[in-house]
Amino acid sequence: MFKKWHLFTPGPVPVPSRVLLAGAKPTPHHRLPEFSSVLSEIRQDLQYLFQTKRPVFFFASSGTGAMEAAVANLFSPGEKVLVVRGGKFGERWGEIAETYGLVPVFLDVSWGKAVRPEEVEDRLAADPEIRGVLVQAHETSTGVKHPVRELAEIVRKRDVLLVVDAISALGVYPLPMDEWGIDVMVAGSQKSLALPPGLSFLALSERAWSQVERASLPRYYFDLRREWQAYQKETTAYTPAVSLLLSLREALQMIKEIGLERLFAHYALISEACREGVKALGLELLAEAPCEALTVIKLPQGIEGGKLTKLLRERYGVILAGGQGKLKGRVVRITHMGHQSPLEVVLALSALEVGLSELGYPVKMGTGVSRALEVIREKGKEVYA
Amino acid sequence: MFKKWHLFTPGPVPVPSRVLLAGAKPTPHHRLPEFSSVLSEIRQDLQYLFQTKRPVFFFASSGTGAMEAAVANLFSPGEKVLVVRGGKFGERWGEIAETYGLVPVFLDVSWGKAVRPEEVEDRLAADPEIRGVLVQAHETSTGVKHPVRELAEIVRKRDVLLVVDAISALGVYPLPMDEWGIDVMVAGSQKSLALPPGLSFLALSERAWSQVERASLPRYYFDLRREWQAYQKETTAYTPAVSLLLSLREALQMIKEIGLERLFAHYALISEACREGVKALGLELLAEAPCEALTVIKLPQGIEGGKLTKLLRERYGVILAGGQGKLKGRVVRITHMGHQSPLEVVLALSALEVGLSELGYPVKMGTGVSRALEVIREKGKEVYA
Repeated sequence: MFKKWHLFTPGPVPVPSRVLLAGAKPTPHHRLPEFSSVLSEIRQDLQYLFQTKRPVFFFASSGTGAMEAAVANLFSPGEKVLVVRGGKFGERWGEIAETYGLVPVFLDVSWGKAVRPEEVEDRLAADPEIRGVLVQAHETSTGVKHPVRELAEIVRKRDVLLVVDAISALGVYPLPMDEWGIDVMVAGSQKSLALPPGLSFLALSERAWSQVERASLPRYYFDLRREWQAYQKETTAYTPAVSLLLSLREALQMIKEIGLERLFAHYALISEACREGVKALGLELLAEAPCEALTVIKLPQGIEGGKLTKLLRERYGVILAGGQGKLKGRVVRITHMGHQSPLEVVLALSALEVGLSELGYPVKMGTGVSRALEVIREKGKEVYA
Repeated sequence: MFKKWHLFTPGPVPVPSRVLLAGAKPTPHHRLPEFSSVLSEIRQDLQYLFQTKRPVFFFASSGTGAMEAAVANLFSPGEKVLVVRGGKFGERWGEIAETYGLVPVFLDVSWGKAVRPEEVEDRLAADPEIRGVLVQAHETSTGVKHPVRELAEIVRKRDVLLVVDAISALGVYPLPMDEWGIDVMVAGSQKSLALPPGLSFLALSERAWSQVERASLPRYYFDLRREWQAYQKETTAYTPAVSLLLSLREALQMIKEIGLERLFAHYALISEACREGVKALGLELLAEAPCEALTVIKLPQGIEGGKLTKLLRERYGVILAGGQGKLKGRVVRITHMGHQSPLEVVLALSALEVGLSELGYPVKMGTGVSRALEVIREKGKEVYA
């Protein structure tokens, strides 16, 4: 009876049963009028989530699919894009750009650091051929938040598009697309939306949309022109992931009930509690500018990440994420996204304490948890009032 | 997304999705051969859980139904039964006995104390007309464990039956029915079986069974003679709660996979962690002999139980139980039963700390949790190896 999983991974995340059950209903046919009304409700609520008046498109794909859709719909072969590369997902932007015959110009950032807006400005000034900046709202591999608002201000002065991978950021902290002037924002279902994986999302500013007709890169499934035609007829170009969309409708409903402001406040609080707890344990955060979606913790010398995550998973059912790429084995990541109640972060920290102690790192039990509880005690009464 | 319930109540308890999904299957017909094989599997596994070779009966009813069934099937009007009354459920035995025209002899025990076996022995010696002893394995209203093994030894020397309400005890700690010589053991579904409410169980020793024909109290739905006839034909007397039985089959399967020994060790560990955490907070346990199913905590002067449970439920989604009867408002109860992973007890303690502090009781955040984690750190590696 005690074998129960607690997911603290940056996707998948815990899914509310209300959302799961919505997707467990008998599959309606996607070309019938009843489903059109589902689509139009979803599309409206996605605009609320994206904080945009622009249409939001979705695909049956992982988040990577929508990253590819962004590139394929905006650019033409041989065009230059500036790629902010400070982790695994920055690398992915570069790989997609190269795959499509673009010329990526890499702005390398140490893993754990945020890009400095001045550097982007300098690069754009130095090379007027650059047509787009590809960046993450935060790097999920390092937990670093990039300065999206400042980047949007910089590109706005030029004929350059800002393409933001907000796959694990949308709905976690403010990224008001229209207000900040983000040109393209990409999201995924298995993050703050607290859905199972399988859906991706993207929205384009007017400025970005004007590039879609001009762009000559090949695209078929991800062709936004076709999707826009279908959108106007209250349908989709190809068969959509119907059951996931029924779940999505429910998840969006939940988010509206809570409200974006409160949701952001929740994530701000539990991520702060986690960071404070981690620091109280004498551990360091990897990110100099940490995001609210997850906390990336540098492991002490001698503690191997794989061993730690395995022990916690097998013995206590607590699933933390390890490091990716060059951080493999060296960090552990606690995610705050999805269906998590305010005190569940304490579960993750408790597991971390017990696990580190078992592996030989000296921990006075409760040190991190106590600090996290102080933060929640202090601020919880406002956030969850 | 943060609105999520954490049930720490003594029934209902968290139910594993595997168990819920088993009950969500299309309802089979209960008179077809396929269902007979379900029944025979369940009956066999219930014997494992009850640690008996005797048949185990079930009813679609709450646990109270099976308490009533025990009384109605064993006794005749005007017969005397000794009722151990040290809490709300001891009172219930008395009410049932009175309702059926038995003569209850009350052995009153202060709420929070266990009955002393010598007292039972003295009462039985003093009054040879007493035909049965009605007792709880533990009093769920106080958290007190009664000395069932010792009571079984006492009644065994006499023509007296030991009837044990193990509704929230079975599967939590050892109560080997045959080995100890317990005459009747009653259980319910929404406790350690981690099922939704709706099923009750009971098993009778040979000695108890020999009274069933003799007993002249009226019973129809709860008539064990009819159930035994149906049992032998691999069916049930009346329509059973089919979907709950499908869930039960799954729950029993899970219990067998874990094994009773490990399950008992799990409950022993998390209840110890909870008690130690509570004591570290400077709080007192109500029970002098605490059971492993739940921890009943005396609230400090000035803290009203209803306010505390409301605050924790509304703000943090953590549902603790308040006091019952004369303990209303004066205690709070943290339950360990059901689908709870080892570290979830920390959630309950965290909530308790935050809540008490909000209501004015001085708590250095993390004091209780730290102590609980020490216990888990020390013993978890063996229990969950």
